[in-house]
Amino acid sequence: MAHDPSNTQRTLTVGLLGLGVVGSGVATLLRDHADEIAGRVGARLEIGPVVVRDVNKSRDVDVAVTDDVSTVVGAEGVDIVVEVMGGIDPARELLTRALKAGQSVVTANKELISTHGAELLTAAQEHSVRLEYEAAVAGAIPIIKPMRESLAGDRVRKVLGILNGTTNYILTRMTEEGAELAPVLADAQALGYAEADPTADVGGHDAAAKAAILASLAFDAHVVRDDVYTEGIMSVTATDIANAKRMGYVIKLLGIAEEHEDASIGVRVHPAWIPTSHPLASIREAYNAIFVEADAAGDLMFYGRGAGSLPTASAVVGDVVTAARAMLAGERLPSVAVADKPIRPVDEEIVQYYLLLDVADEAGVLSRVAATFGDHDVSIKSVWQEGEGDQAQLLLITHAAREGNVRACVEALKDLSDVNAIASSMRVEDRREG
Amino acid sequence: MAHDPSNTQRTLTVGLLGLGVVGSGVATLLRDHADEIAGRVGARLEIGPVVVRDVNKSRDVDVAVTDDVSTVVGAEGVDIVVEVMGGIDPARELLTRALKAGQSVVTANKELISTHGAELLTAAQEHSVRLEYEAAVAGAIPIIKPMRESLAGDRVRKVLGILNGTTNYILTRMTEEGAELAPVLADAQALGYAEADPTADVGGHDAAAKAAILASLAFDAHVVRDDVYTEGIMSVTATDIANAKRMGYVIKLLGIAEEHEDASIGVRVHPAWIPTSHPLASIREAYNAIFVEADAAGDLMFYGRGAGSLPTASAVVGDVVTAARAMLAGERLPSVAVADKPIRPVDEEIVQYYLLLDVADEAGVLSRVAATFGDHDVSIKSVWQEGEGDQAQLLLITHAAREGNVRACVEALKDLSDVNAIASSMRVEDRREG
Repeated sequence: MAHDPSNTQRTLTVGLLGLGVVGSGVATLLRDHADEIAGRVGARLEIGPVVVRDVNKSRDVDVAVTDDVSTVVGAEGVDIVVEVMGGIDPARELLTRALKAGQSVVTANKELISTHGAELLTAAQEHSVRLEYEAAVAGAIPIIKPMRESLAGDRVRKVLGILNGTTNYILTRMTEEGAELAPVLADAQALGYAEADPTADVGGHDAAAKAAILASLAFDAHVVRDDVYTEGIMSVTATDIANAKRMGYVIKLLGIAEEHEDASIGVRVHPAWIPTSHPLASIREAYNAIFVEADAAGDLMFYGRGAGSLPTASAVVGDVVTAARAMLAGERLPSVAVADKPIRPVDEEIVQYYLLLDVADEAGVLSRVAATFGDHDVSIKSVWQEGEGDQAQLLLITHAAREGNVRACVEALKDLSDVNAIASSMRVEDRREG
Repeated sequence: MAHDPSNTQRTLTVGLLGLGVVGSGVATLLRDHADEIAGRVGARLEIGPVVVRDVNKSRDVDVAVTDDVSTVVGAEGVDIVVEVMGGIDPARELLTRALKAGQSVVTANKELISTHGAELLTAAQEHSVRLEYEAAVAGAIPIIKPMRESLAGDRVRKVLGILNGTTNYILTRMTEEGAELAPVLADAQALGYAEADPTADVGGHDAAAKAAILASLAFDAHVVRDDVYTEGIMSVTATDIANAKRMGYVIKLLGIAEEHEDASIGVRVHPAWIPTSHPLASIREAYNAIFVEADAAGDLMFYGRGAGSLPTASAVVGDVVTAARAMLAGERLPSVAVADKPIRPVDEEIVQYYLLLDVADEAGVLSRVAATFGDHDVSIKSVWQEGEGDQAQLLLITHAAREGNVRACVEALKDLSDVNAIASSMRVEDRREG
């Protein structure tokens, strides 16, 4: 596959694996923007074979489909393979074959990249082709290239992301309407913002895959999906949101990746309180945003649509252009030295907590609760007593403490006879707290 | 200058033109992050000669300085030239020479790129080297690469940017403190947020250079600084800000670039009302942000520090890494077909306006004012009468109308005997208004 960069009449052929919502968007953009893209690439990009599971299904886009993967993968005359079928198998094996055959690969597959990204990047490197996956994280938001290129002279310390549109939509409506989660989720399902089985979204698993990819990029490390400590939003209540609000916070499902001083990496996904003054606090509805703290650049934020046919397709076609330019220029994938950095267990993270306790309305409760915190080296920043009698609650905000200590403290609180229940607990992400 | 990509022990030498605040930051990052950068490039980057005007001046960074440009420009053994001296002359001539000698160039010089960017890009293209200028727009915020690469498969319709930190700092304080501009500007000067001569910032000229660069990139066009219609913030009053606030808007100095249906391009910098719900409305203090409306990707926003030694240096060093990788891979600068698209005169833009009129408190004023609007094909969206007697004011918001018509209408209003003065006028950027 030799290319003559001086020949601007050259055509590169893009084969597609998959023609679902994203695949249809990719085909549409490649066709509708063909002239601009040709101007930007220096070659025309043509849609080659499109592989689908069921060739008889009727489709919105008018392209020739086939169920024979060999017309794309490893096929002579197909320069770039776009994978938008999703899932690990058979995508993993097909893309490995494509890379080994000297085809550049563009994928939107976060599951695959967050588990087998390293092996695919190695294959791309070995065969001097590109592997691009901008669409795998936060849809249309350019984050992979900025991280890999624009921040390549800097040191990223921490990444905080709103990485899942469905959960941000649900939390936004809960915040703005004072509603509980269940009815908002049902409504989101009716509106098509949430799947019939919403587990991947509300359980934090979708965000966890993206957090693993971001951590790998930010810290030049191997981080896979299973390294990510994950909690979803199902336990978030209207009371939590109201409590956060009156103390100047909002609740967001955050993906947080951090490189610690000892070069260990912490990656976690969970709902968290963030100050209303934080730029992530104003990200509403199904939008995504990624907030990056870098040594020299300072704070950066990238905002946009995290999903949807055309936004995701825009990112895919941007990657196709990158791959096409690189092929024409004979450029290799930049090689990045990746280190094996240890993953810090969540118990070792230093975190701040909000806790809501159902307590007996009796003298001395606060002192016994406070003593339990002290016994576990967790220092209380502020505390409010709410309600009376059976309804009495203590709302506490801790200072930053070791997660493991907070957990042990919570267990010990459960054993106190004055504490009827731990009504709620949630981490607080606030830089004002060391 | 042949490079063997397989040799990871290779060293590339980076020569610097200038060692001011940004140059010192670049030298610091290249040194402090040397190991990470080597891992990301696949070669070590060494600081070569550093050219300064006055070699005897004492400096914070410990590097060898010279006043002989020939040790950097066209010098054998200097692979990448970083220009952080600013100004058009002699930067233009020096960088042209460097590019022609086969050196890649990284510059933070917005003045130069916004006036002579096209000729420098052509020189880079002809000599198969890179010209990178991420730091020339919005400091540390990665916007050039996302625009050129991530959005290369999409069609950008409009770019709105808060491109100047000083003016955003001033407007933020005016908004949050209800203060007038003069004392806040004086304070900003005392704090070092504004220059002793603040004209470039408050006059909108700094933002205009950046808007020209953004427009060129967004629309694959030749747009230079002189194509940008420019108004500064000096006429913004506390009253304007209060009026905006109670109608759900904030005032920002915006750079706006738009490609119209007829492929003409409008580029303008001026203060504007934007709805508080717009993501740009929450950009506070000296931060910059760029909001992009693309056909497929939808809305995107990029946020970060627009100036400062280390943030700008982070962008410069990111570009150095890009240039170094390209050299090692033997890659050419991607060629983009640039069209000569006409610039739409500001009079032809379709804009919405806020107007504040000092009027006589007499019967029939409103009807005569309204008739004048009607005569000029400007339709009124809403109107409030404020105060009484000598203090009577009319506050009007128009529907979107041709700018030239609004201007003619304002001239005609001045001639009405009931209208004592046009106390204020400002454009409103609100997508809810077609």
